[in-house]
Amino acid sequence: MTADLELPVALGLDFGTESVRALLIDSQGRELGCVSRNYEHGQITQTLPGTGLTIPPDHAFQSPSDWLDGAAEATRQAIADAGIDPRRIVGIGVDFTSCTMLPTKRDGTPLCQLDAFTDVMMAWPKLWKHHGAIEQTQRMNAIAEERGEAFMDRYGGTIGLEWFFPKLLETIDKSPEVYDAAEVWLEAGDWFVWQLVGGEAERLPRSTCQAGYKALWSAEEGYANDAYLSAVEPRLAEAVRRKMPGRMLSPGEKAGELTEKMAERFGLPAGIAVSAATIDAHSAVPGVGAAEPGTLVMVMGTSSCHMLNATIGKPVNGVAGIVDGGILPGMFGYETGQAAVGDAFAWLLKLLNLQSFDELGRAAIALPPGSEGVVCLDWMNGCRTPLMDGSLKGVFAGLTLATTPAHLYRALLEASAMGVRWIVDLLTEGGVPVERFIATGGLPHHNPAVTQIYADVLGCEIEVHPSEQGPAVGAAVLGMLAAGSEKSGFENVVDAASAMAAVPVEKKKIVKPQQDHRAAYDVLYARYGRLAVTFSTPDLLN
Amino acid sequence: MTADLELPVALGLDFGTESVRALLIDSQGRELGCVSRNYEHGQITQTLPGTGLTIPPDHAFQSPSDWLDGAAEATRQAIADAGIDPRRIVGIGVDFTSCTMLPTKRDGTPLCQLDAFTDVMMAWPKLWKHHGAIEQTQRMNAIAEERGEAFMDRYGGTIGLEWFFPKLLETIDKSPEVYDAAEVWLEAGDWFVWQLVGGEAERLPRSTCQAGYKALWSAEEGYANDAYLSAVEPRLAEAVRRKMPGRMLSPGEKAGELTEKMAERFGLPAGIAVSAATIDAHSAVPGVGAAEPGTLVMVMGTSSCHMLNATIGKPVNGVAGIVDGGILPGMFGYETGQAAVGDAFAWLLKLLNLQSFDELGRAAIALPPGSEGVVCLDWMNGCRTPLMDGSLKGVFAGLTLATTPAHLYRALLEASAMGVRWIVDLLTEGGVPVERFIATGGLPHHNPAVTQIYADVLGCEIEVHPSEQGPAVGAAVLGMLAAGSEKSGFENVVDAASAMAAVPVEKKKIVKPQQDHRAAYDVLYARYGRLAVTFSTPDLLN
Repeated sequence: MTADLELPVALGLDFGTESVRALLIDSQGRELGCVSRNYEHGQITQTLPGTGLTIPPDHAFQSPSDWLDGAAEATRQAIADAGIDPRRIVGIGVDFTSCTMLPTKRDGTPLCQLDAFTDVMMAWPKLWKHHGAIEQTQRMNAIAEERGEAFMDRYGGTIGLEWFFPKLLETIDKSPEVYDAAEVWLEAGDWFVWQLVGGEAERLPRSTCQAGYKALWSAEEGYANDAYLSAVEPRLAEAVRRKMPGRMLSPGEKAGELTEKMAERFGLPAGIAVSAATIDAHSAVPGVGAAEPGTLVMVMGTSSCHMLNATIGKPVNGVAGIVDGGILPGMFGYETGQAAVGDAFAWLLKLLNLQSFDELGRAAIALPPGSEGVVCLDWMNGCRTPLMDGSLKGVFAGLTLATTPAHLYRALLEASAMGVRWIVDLLTEGGVPVERFIATGGLPHHNPAVTQIYADVLGCEIEVHPSEQGPAVGAAVLGMLAAGSEKSGFENVVDAASAMAAVPVEKKKIVKPQQDHRAAYDVLYARYGRLAVTFSTPDLLN
Repeated sequence: MTADLELPVALGLDFGTESVRALLIDSQGRELGCVSRNYEHGQITQTLPGTGLTIPPDHAFQSPSDWLDGAAEATRQAIADAGIDPRRIVGIGVDFTSCTMLPTKRDGTPLCQLDAFTDVMMAWPKLWKHHGAIEQTQRMNAIAEERGEAFMDRYGGTIGLEWFFPKLLETIDKSPEVYDAAEVWLEAGDWFVWQLVGGEAERLPRSTCQAGYKALWSAEEGYANDAYLSAVEPRLAEAVRRKMPGRMLSPGEKAGELTEKMAERFGLPAGIAVSAATIDAHSAVPGVGAAEPGTLVMVMGTSSCHMLNATIGKPVNGVAGIVDGGILPGMFGYETGQAAVGDAFAWLLKLLNLQSFDELGRAAIALPPGSEGVVCLDWMNGCRTPLMDGSLKGVFAGLTLATTPAHLYRALLEASAMGVRWIVDLLTEGGVPVERFIATGGLPHHNPAVTQIYADVLGCEIEVHPSEQGPAVGAAVLGMLAAGSEKSGFENVVDAASAMAAVPVEKKKIVKPQQDHRAAYDVLYARYGRLAVTFSTPDLLN
């Protein structure tokens, strides 16, 4: 038996906030190996590595070497675990948190790796959740509004605190020497793919998904127009003209082939096809086999992204990103999200000095809807959809001397679920129907209380995708596509997603809403809405 | 040497929420013995003793036998510890939480001790913090407002949830059979003094302090008028006419002499003079030797009462009780309070699964004013002064993923201090000046973070009275007064308070405000005010 007679395999590399996961999956969806590795430096939020520099609150960085080291190690171990011949691997797909971005030299060297910039915070990759650009975001929004920029309609009227240009503008403001020294600005996912396939900066493969959702780019118009960017800051326009070279490619399009150098580092044969990167959340849509319109794919982890494909593309109030073909070809991709989900749950657990969600979750589930009067806004990392305001803060109200940790936890879960209900309401009211819910990501599996309360608050059943690797599977699907039909056997993404990621009926896990909670949650949703309106007034807490 | 040659001694009995304290002090203020005993049943908030009955949230009861058992035991032990001849004790003073109230038969037997009523919740003494009468309080306020009742001016326009008549009305509503069987309704402090001195129900000694502050009574008009009470509920008016017998006596006036039976139980000689009861908080005013107008005595424990004497008596917006001679003779006593102070701190400690305030307090003090954006309303037990609304709830806002237990604790301390600042503002704006702050009670001693943050937020220095026994000393002062000048050597309360309770200069502990925090707290106080206004809107959380 030779490797050629066996089914082709794809490698999905899924870069999260704390770790990277390498998943090997064959063309019939069999998971052969899956290994994750924590980044050596994790989220860099306390001290800048190798320096004594204290990082201000709300700032978050990562280290590029962590991405390469972690991915190479995880890949080697996954191959060993799977016991397969690495020559069966025909394609590599990459999904990445976004917008995680960095400045590099023309040869791809991250600025933070140069001696002159190791101790300059702004030279380091900014993690998606870095919130240092509050003032810059306000400026960009104010000027866009003043000028009536049409591109804003695609983003619900608001540029996000976590997006590409605010982060770049923050660097121009705070460390102009970093801006000056930078020759290339790019998404971390694009940087990683560039490292795999090599080549000149002019031809570096950039993802339309990341550019479309996070960098004000569209296929028709390119990036936000020069006049607008110049009005904000001339160097922002200059960056687009001179410091953002590359080719725009859709996820699943071939970015290049694995170089000899990287092949050696990863324990793979050279020449394997590599797909353009995609955003981790968006990768979950093919990753759970959801290729039809009307299905909200909820990728629930540290934060949540809720993806929807629809046959119509129209601006929806508060919905942050609408990109033609942004998730899957031939449909309009709507991206919405919540800024802190698993992160907020973990924060509460730590705040309460508890070790595990198990007992807390059982106690929370035993409480009635409404958590006996305790109400929460889960804006501990700002509010993404629909308010697009990273400066908003979390709230617990309705506290009494009888309030216990379980009350706080249930209230937080309910707030998280109310946030999804708000998003669904806005889509529905905007004429974009939501007919089916699929939950994926680590959270729904480790924390059954979450999906039950989501189902109750939404009043709809939720399918929990049995793989915890939604985004990694999606990345592998895209990697398989990049290999081309001759090697993969697939003509398009829908075929690949169906074959590699759809769940057989008998394996489906459905969480049903408790119908007797429905009326209670209608009332509680109105209460949540009042509190949300109250605390979205910027002056209340300033 | 005989006992007669030694200084006279008074016994102060201080009934708190969890325990009773017996303090022996001589006429020169020397503390000879001090013993406290926890009540066997503590606060009864879970299950009614001797029954399987579950107590609803917000309900709180006590057991009359706990008061007698605890006080007798503590007194015997205090005498033993002091090693004095009990014949030196010339007077007994009693301070009690208020309004803690109960129904009895004409012989003083509490209804809850009768077989027929042991399992009827409403027959038990309701502890001051019992919040079962929300609906009844609303009804009483609505009708008083409708009728434009003049007596309301003495109470800041609001009858409190914790007061006498709402608690009585709750019993009429919920357990009319208890109302029917009750022959006497009275304050627990009055009941206890009645037990000590014996006698017919018609002559039972009632405290003008408790009646004035908690039962709509004034020397000029008696209880709230019959027409008003009848309009609320005819049986309320009937209770005043037929079920509230007794003599009205000021604190320090002699209620009677210790009976043989009680003398035996307490290990004391019979015939000792017993003073009329006073409210625990009010007892602290003579108890810290503060006999002049303009001094705010802050009695800080489970909850806080802030007492002020003034030479003028006029209604002040939001101030709950203004009684001529209600605290000390010859001055108008202003009572204000906060519903949860030590209780709220203890609740937070437990919520956070922490064991001690020490480390938490240090971490909280190390944070800057404003707790890095975390804001709190400490209404976990409602808001007493100035909103007089027991249904209000606590809030933590401004939460981020960087929020720690220390942030919550500092925010809670700041909220508590802001509450005092609000009270001082209202008094000052109302023309009643506050010139000096004295803190007493257990809290300022055990928890130095509290007084420092109070001083910073108020921008004024705070004298911490070195005795933790402010109310118990005050009770002893009143007991000494009741003994008469022949036995005590004192002609009036000012002389007795000065001799027994004032602090020599060298022992004064002064907490000074950090002046560089002043401007910050002016801004933060405005923020607190906005949040307080927002959450005093009843519809926000309903």
